[in-house]
Amino acid sequence: MQGMSSSTSERLAPQRNLPVEATRRLLRRNAYVNLARLLGKLHGRDSADIVTQLTVNEQCKLLEHMPTLELVTSIFTYLDEETRAQLMPQLSTARLSAIVRHLPTDDAADILAELPQERLAAMLDQLPDALAEQINRLLAYDPQTAGGLMTTDYFSVEDTWTTAEVLEQLRRRSSRLETVFYLYVVDAEHRLVGVVSLRQLVTAEPHVVIRDLMETEVICVAVDEDQAHIAHLITQYDFLALPVVDYSHRLAGIVTVDDIIDVISEEATEDMLRMAGVNPDAMLEHTSRGNLRHRLPWLSVSWVGGLLASYVIDANESTLSSMVMLAAFFPVIIGMGGNAATQALAVAVRGLATGSITASDMMSAIANEGRIGLSLGLIYGVLLGTVAWFWQGTVMLGLVVGVSIWSSMSIAAILGGVLPLGFARLRIDPAVASGPFLTTAIDVIGLAIYLATARLLLAV
Amino acid sequence: MQGMSSSTSERLAPQRNLPVEATRRLLRRNAYVNLARLLGKLHGRDSADIVTQLTVNEQCKLLEHMPTLELVTSIFTYLDEETRAQLMPQLSTARLSAIVRHLPTDDAADILAELPQERLAAMLDQLPDALAEQINRLLAYDPQTAGGLMTTDYFSVEDTWTTAEVLEQLRRRSSRLETVFYLYVVDAEHRLVGVVSLRQLVTAEPHVVIRDLMETEVICVAVDEDQAHIAHLITQYDFLALPVVDYSHRLAGIVTVDDIIDVISEEATEDMLRMAGVNPDAMLEHTSRGNLRHRLPWLSVSWVGGLLASYVIDANESTLSSMVMLAAFFPVIIGMGGNAATQALAVAVRGLATGSITASDMMSAIANEGRIGLSLGLIYGVLLGTVAWFWQGTVMLGLVVGVSIWSSMSIAAILGGVLPLGFARLRIDPAVASGPFLTTAIDVIGLAIYLATARLLLAV
Repeated sequence: MQGMSSSTSERLAPQRNLPVEATRRLLRRNAYVNLARLLGKLHGRDSADIVTQLTVNEQCKLLEHMPTLELVTSIFTYLDEETRAQLMPQLSTARLSAIVRHLPTDDAADILAELPQERLAAMLDQLPDALAEQINRLLAYDPQTAGGLMTTDYFSVEDTWTTAEVLEQLRRRSSRLETVFYLYVVDAEHRLVGVVSLRQLVTAEPHVVIRDLMETEVICVAVDEDQAHIAHLITQYDFLALPVVDYSHRLAGIVTVDDIIDVISEEATEDMLRMAGVNPDAMLEHTSRGNLRHRLPWLSVSWVGGLLASYVIDANESTLSSMVMLAAFFPVIIGMGGNAATQALAVAVRGLATGSITASDMMSAIANEGRIGLSLGLIYGVLLGTVAWFWQGTVMLGLVVGVSIWSSMSIAAILGGVLPLGFARLRIDPAVASGPFLTTAIDVIGLAIYLATARLLLAV
Repeated sequence: MQGMSSSTSERLAPQRNLPVEATRRLLRRNAYVNLARLLGKLHGRDSADIVTQLTVNEQCKLLEHMPTLELVTSIFTYLDEETRAQLMPQLSTARLSAIVRHLPTDDAADILAELPQERLAAMLDQLPDALAEQINRLLAYDPQTAGGLMTTDYFSVEDTWTTAEVLEQLRRRSSRLETVFYLYVVDAEHRLVGVVSLRQLVTAEPHVVIRDLMETEVICVAVDEDQAHIAHLITQYDFLALPVVDYSHRLAGIVTVDDIIDVISEEATEDMLRMAGVNPDAMLEHTSRGNLRHRLPWLSVSWVGGLLASYVIDANESTLSSMVMLAAFFPVIIGMGGNAATQALAVAVRGLATGSITASDMMSAIANEGRIGLSLGLIYGVLLGTVAWFWQGTVMLGLVVGVSIWSSMSIAAILGGVLPLGFARLRIDPAVASGPFLTTAIDVIGLAIYLATARLLLAV
């Protein structure tokens, strides 16, 4: 392990540390050609890492004056949002529009979306009409749909062309194309009719007509398809790109796998934060003030639930004062129920997200959670009941604790399965709706059961 | 939306419902040629979906007798693990080895790994020596490393070849290659020296020597590199595939983006389940008995914590009996602390997983969580303290509740940030170590603070 792994880090490390100083030195001397040579050897991602470590002034100087526009564009692509937001007001409109012209249209639209309205209009004026129009159209889509994710830099060919003609076109146009793994075949009205992989094309005879080479069963999505569904399709079918069509089945763009990787990671983050009761937008906040605003509303669920639980206890004050030790088991009752709920919830939410639980086996998944909850509740009910019995020397207290844990864990596991699966069926995001509500509800239910059983069995 | 979206579902739906019956009918009549024609029109994933809905006998009959081996292989690839496990003992060794021969080597190794030892040996005997050896080598790697993920069906060329020679080779060998987006360039000792994209190759002049076309800065990983790191590289650099080298820097295989998508989703699931206190292996369990076994140990953390909390309360019995209403606020104190901890934890765990929190800004991330916790604690402390005061008519009880909530939420937020970030620095998976322990610890800490403050301020 160490041998190669450290050699891999060595390959990456010097690109991260030493060159920052070299970049600074060359910048100070205005040695832009040398700078281009230095950064040109690196992957755009690594150059961007170096640039991030410079001051805003240095960053601006570098991007404004570097002679190789491709290099500038590739660095700009890999800069994080924060750095880009700082830089964009500093760059000249001419340079920014030159960069945008070299970007894939989806990245261009994403970057322009960050600009204030007037600057955006000024930028679009500087771009060729066709490109400005394309970007304008992309800006109109919801960023979390196919339209918002897609690029318009796909390579489409007509079904009447031959292999040789396609290869010739490809040679001429390739520099601006983001990804050419699939060639999308359209008819005269630009409707999507087939697909050919680059590999098929390369291995075909030159005179073959595309129509005879293409696959006609093309899986595609509509411009307003949700990103989660697209991620699901690409993951299921192992696609590298997915064509996007408009309402007339005309090819509008493609969504590529690298955009989808980000979506998958983003959706997982959202699921997890929502289950923990954090508004996912909080991840984008860099101030604690903003963060605070996003976490407050979710905690209020917990506070209302807490007060409700307090009310349940208050209503049972007479029971409690005749046997104060009942209170000692509140944390166990609350804790075991809450954890059983969270476990069932996490399994259901991720099961739905990864597709390991489907619409058809929902009922069996819920039944399964129920069985697990009943068994876990029984095991811990007996264990904790026995502890309570011997500790407090009252067999009835043991019985009350045991029965309460058993019933609250069973209810928790069933609700933890039912809620997300039910929400999924109603097409409400299961992660949003379930987390904080469920655990709080289980607290109240558990305590109510506990105190009611106590009143019944202890006759207090 | 509706228009296209429903048309997309229409495209997919009939492949899922109607053809199952058609497949059944053709199977009963042994009409394998018609069957091949029916399924041949579909994507392998959709054919697999149809096959999954058949009985094991039907599945076996179909896979054993279908004439088109490519179709059989593609269906087999997309079958879920469970179906495959049921089928494999039923299929003849001859058929199974024919399927394996047509699979990419990584998939072949994954499938063979599921076989019992003797059957595996029998299968390897039936395969060509070179393939058997490759698969044997792949079986030796940890499945969660580069070696375990990689396929050996990459396309490598020597640096002395010309574009035309490479294209000729590609035409001849393409059928067996899983993915050809990049051509890996090796020297005479098979050491990785460069990379050329298929697009570059297609657009280059025929006489150009690969050495002059290739990029020499190739980012690669060692055979024993961990899958999380590979996922990180592929995501960061937007790679479609990443070459894997052995200890002598010889090219050993490639990891492709579709395998990495699965890893990303898998790692997100693991993070979430661990935070919820479910052993991630439980997701693979299809029996409630197995599931039970995986959830039990984690709940025991909660049970130990609960008992500890009960002990804290028991030790304060005298305080409690002189003012029973103290118990009414247990759920609020426990709930608010636990939720603040979970929120901070989720932000830190996902921040680390997605790279939005890096080693360099850990301290500032912890400080940020601390600030948020202090503020949230103050807001809810004042709110709940006021409620307690008016409800119970005792200003001191309000103060006790307020101070306890404030301090336990602050501690919770700080610990929720410190624990995962600290574990990450120690290279322990932050999600494993943090979840159930943290929330339970906060329960105990919160109650201890509450009861101590009560003794101090209420003089009971």
